[in-house]
Amino acid sequence: MVRIAICAPGKPLKRDRADAVEALVAGRDDVSLHFHDQCFIHDGHFAGSDPVRLAALLECANDPAFDAVWFAMGGYGSNRIAAQAITQMDDAANAKSYLGYSDTGFLLAALYKHGIGRVAHGPLAGDIKHEGGAKTIERALDWLKGGEAGLEPHLDNRPAVAFNLTTLAMLVGTDLAPDLAGHVVMVEEVAEHLYAVDRLFFHVTQHLRGIAGLRLGRIGQVPQNDRPFGTDEVAIAQDWCARSGIPYLGRAEIGHDAANRIVPFGLEARAPRA
Amino acid sequence: MVRIAICAPGKPLKRDRADAVEALVAGRDDVSLHFHDQCFIHDGHFAGSDPVRLAALLECANDPAFDAVWFAMGGYGSNRIAAQAITQMDDAANAKSYLGYSDTGFLLAALYKHGIGRVAHGPLAGDIKHEGGAKTIERALDWLKGGEAGLEPHLDNRPAVAFNLTTLAMLVGTDLAPDLAGHVVMVEEVAEHLYAVDRLFFHVTQHLRGIAGLRLGRIGQVPQNDRPFGTDEVAIAQDWCARSGIPYLGRAEIGHDAANRIVPFGLEARAPRA
Repeated sequence: MVRIAICAPGKPLKRDRADAVEALVAGRDDVSLHFHDQCFIHDGHFAGSDPVRLAALLECANDPAFDAVWFAMGGYGSNRIAAQAITQMDDAANAKSYLGYSDTGFLLAALYKHGIGRVAHGPLAGDIKHEGGAKTIERALDWLKGGEAGLEPHLDNRPAVAFNLTTLAMLVGTDLAPDLAGHVVMVEEVAEHLYAVDRLFFHVTQHLRGIAGLRLGRIGQVPQNDRPFGTDEVAIAQDWCARSGIPYLGRAEIGHDAANRIVPFGLEARAPRA
Repeated sequence: MVRIAICAPGKPLKRDRADAVEALVAGRDDVSLHFHDQCFIHDGHFAGSDPVRLAALLECANDPAFDAVWFAMGGYGSNRIAAQAITQMDDAANAKSYLGYSDTGFLLAALYKHGIGRVAHGPLAGDIKHEGGAKTIERALDWLKGGEAGLEPHLDNRPAVAFNLTTLAMLVGTDLAPDLAGHVVMVEEVAEHLYAVDRLFFHVTQHLRGIAGLRLGRIGQVPQNDRPFGTDEVAIAQDWCARSGIPYLGRAEIGHDAANRIVPFGLEARAPRA
């Protein structure tokens, strides 16, 4: 039985999504889920104020009754509590797995930087919303149980990380950013114009010199612009990689969608749980 | 007679805006304007390909027949040519004034970093489009002629710079970024959600430790979100300044609007032209 605590470091989770995820695991003896009440708080843009979200995260992470912390939703806000969270995490937090993506990438980064737990980029509990969401949730649960079936298929013997592109752009150079030298860095994006994607690649490639290479996940739901950008996301990634001397390694099976595969951070998180 | 060359490092200028600016100065002997043909090229997202925009910028900057380079429009794209432009600028480029804002902030930054010319954040030629745009254009021309009537009113005896917030966030830590230690940094934004503004402040304040302080320009045309952010742009700026130890100095009279005042970069650019 893997005991999973769920909290929302950014935006709240809709109750019906939590219900749907709970229905999936009802009566099973491989996993148990605990949705922290904080997941459902609405406070302006956030699932509770900074102190409320920080307290819930620490309650989940520092409770030895749980084996894993699974993030409910992205949105925005994990960067506002990540630095404080790290300083207050204890041995119980260190023994856990952590799974999420999108805005929660700030937290994944900070955990990885400080060597806390077993960290991966992968589905959120709220991803049950997608067509085919049950399979997405099972992929997440499998990894939290120590399985490898949902891993991103291009992982090789080098350490890897994955991030939403905007999250990575806001992360680089900050106190939350781990040293990514020698890493394969995978990025994905959703709902951004291609000119903004180009600008984000300009920024992150300047900050990522020394990485082993970059893989491009899906750039989904690109809004219509008043004029075409003139090139596509592959050409954009290749262009900025070439300009900055970063090897472009091809595509990655990650994105803001049901097919989002799992990227454990570093080599440590690849090994199945003891 | 101040001879001003105009080019478009990002998006193209509409012909009728150029006509309106030319009509303003027709028959005058204080300024002459040369709109480079490149201003009107449409090539995907840009006013011409990177080589075309680069060549036009260099033709304007390196031609001793001109005293100033005025940017026609922002949009996106000056970061794609700024590094190459700097390496190819000559003594004639060094003797000029440069004026623009928004996306052209990447170029202003690179020019300032390399000590090329007299650089300021202020109206673009395309700002004729605003209600009251004639006054906006006259403010720009006055500065290009060596006047000080349009300067941002909070400038003090410390060096200052000004940037669009997104542009600054994409600039920090890159090869184009000048050392801003000891500077008053003014920022403005347009058409971004407040949660994105908050995220941008997280990023830039982490990169700007050591500056003299931050001033907040206008955060205009904030889109409606599905929920209120819960605070306003002043509280956002104050929060991130406090967290990063940067003095918050108050508001600045800059923005994506007709009232956008002029911020010369550094103390050198404050002195009227010889």
